[in-house]
Amino acid sequence: MQAIFNNQPAYRTDVLQPSLAENEALIKLCVAGICATDLELVKGYAEFSGILGHEFVGIVEAVANDKDRHWLNQRVVGSINMGCEHCETCINQGPEHCLHRKVLGIRDKDGVFADFFSLPVRNLFAVPDSVADECAVFTEPLAAALRVVEQMDSIDAPTVAVIGPGRLGLLIGKVMALAGYDVVMLGRSESSLTLPAQWQLKTGLIQDIPDNSFACVVDATGQSAGFEHALRIVRPRGCLFLKSTFSSIEPVDLTKIVVSEINIMGSRCGPFDKALTLLAENKIPIEAMIDGQYILKDHLAAFDHAAQPGIRKILLRP
Amino acid sequence: MQAIFNNQPAYRTDVLQPSLAENEALIKLCVAGICATDLELVKGYAEFSGILGHEFVGIVEAVANDKDRHWLNQRVVGSINMGCEHCETCINQGPEHCLHRKVLGIRDKDGVFADFFSLPVRNLFAVPDSVADECAVFTEPLAAALRVVEQMDSIDAPTVAVIGPGRLGLLIGKVMALAGYDVVMLGRSESSLTLPAQWQLKTGLIQDIPDNSFACVVDATGQSAGFEHALRIVRPRGCLFLKSTFSSIEPVDLTKIVVSEINIMGSRCGPFDKALTLLAENKIPIEAMIDGQYILKDHLAAFDHAAQPGIRKILLRP
Repeated sequence: MQAIFNNQPAYRTDVLQPSLAENEALIKLCVAGICATDLELVKGYAEFSGILGHEFVGIVEAVANDKDRHWLNQRVVGSINMGCEHCETCINQGPEHCLHRKVLGIRDKDGVFADFFSLPVRNLFAVPDSVADECAVFTEPLAAALRVVEQMDSIDAPTVAVIGPGRLGLLIGKVMALAGYDVVMLGRSESSLTLPAQWQLKTGLIQDIPDNSFACVVDATGQSAGFEHALRIVRPRGCLFLKSTFSSIEPVDLTKIVVSEINIMGSRCGPFDKALTLLAENKIPIEAMIDGQYILKDHLAAFDHAAQPGIRKILLRP
Repeated sequence: MQAIFNNQPAYRTDVLQPSLAENEALIKLCVAGICATDLELVKGYAEFSGILGHEFVGIVEAVANDKDRHWLNQRVVGSINMGCEHCETCINQGPEHCLHRKVLGIRDKDGVFADFFSLPVRNLFAVPDSVADECAVFTEPLAAALRVVEQMDSIDAPTVAVIGPGRLGLLIGKVMALAGYDVVMLGRSESSLTLPAQWQLKTGLIQDIPDNSFACVVDATGQSAGFEHALRIVRPRGCLFLKSTFSSIEPVDLTKIVVSEINIMGSRCGPFDKALTLLAENKIPIEAMIDGQYILKDHLAAFDHAAQPGIRKILLRP
């Protein structure tokens, strides 16, 4: 089968189909999404050397255990963390923070930029028939966006600024608006704010925002300049969600965190079930985020396209 | 009068006594403490050019308003923030985070390393007779330590690691232990842990602590190496209190904050009334932290002494 590796040569056609571990399903790829994390992995973040990709919609082709036969031919998406299932973290909180976890296409587990891939059946979620492949492929980033809404439960801040109106930032802004927060999407250029405005979100240029303006700020830029702006515009005793991973170690002025008693919240994976429900309710015109579609063989053009400023989602198909 | 300025020449004897603004008291210095922030100010943090010093015990010599005459001859300590009293922050939260605040010996307000200084009477707290000058001078750092206990209210973590057994860190460890937390003081050398052990605190060498060991970590080192260790030993979904200010912009790996959903809490000033109560109850052998006493004129030797590794508290007297 064909697959895209994070090491060289990236594109290979001589790859064996994955053999299934106990409780796993073999999944045939329908469509995959390129995420900012994939672009960081290519740059060296996390030193991953397997098959890339973790956003997918696919069809279950085989299962290792007979008891899982009801999954056969199901159209599915899947959560990306696989814990050890034995540690305190796995038992009490789930696999997301297991220290020995594998992560699909990111750590110790081949990903989905391939004709076939495997995943434990406990990670699978059936996609409702009403949700098209091109929408369902957004389940993982939409769940990551919803994680911020979950974490906001403990924060008292009706008004929220989201910096970085890209792939993830726009989803965060939209789900927070749907959850009742007064959201402003902030970007560096007018053009980056066109789609947020079409999605009925308030918008603004980050450079125009005065210091100490918001009780809650979400940084979804993935850049140190974005984090600096986020620290700049968050109010004393305010909350700053840090949402995207960096590949480099950045110089950060920690003084304001202490002096203004800022609360910084790291935020990662979220609830797939709630994301699928939102998609089925058709409340987010999510296909408007698709800027291009490529076949696996054209991965170089696809990654180049995904890395361009202002590009939101690039899809890959077998 | 004599005073120590942050600009050159530092020591002057030709300084006029401060004239009192409305609602202010004139205070005669009994004893002052040198704080890590003073050492950072000397290095250039916050670009302050007035008289240094914010930890003090003094006697009220004069008041601007007749209604404040009951303060005369009182022995007092004082909180260091002076807000505008008109903004939303001042009205709802107090002066600590007013954007237009003055801060004693730190921002737009001459400090206490002088024969006399002024402070609004609303900032004053009478010192109980049973509390000696050498204990009362710790009210401000003890209040800052108690701020962490206040903020812990919203955190579920019975076990706490405090990194940096210096001036502030040791006070934080002690007040958290008194508040019922299971505290471990962590330092880089055995010698730094002698006093914490004498104070009946558990101790350990930071370099011996495995990754992801504590649900709550307090970084009171004031150094980027300390912050790196704190991030290293805090568990996924754990809480990291950042307690001391830096004068430089440090390279920080933000990845773990996001991937492990760490909650970073900035923490600064705390409750003077609770600190004075603790001192009056004599629950902390706080004078054991005093490593040296100098007169104002010998400020260079005093600052050099305070900046040496392992030195906790240096006092200044007129």
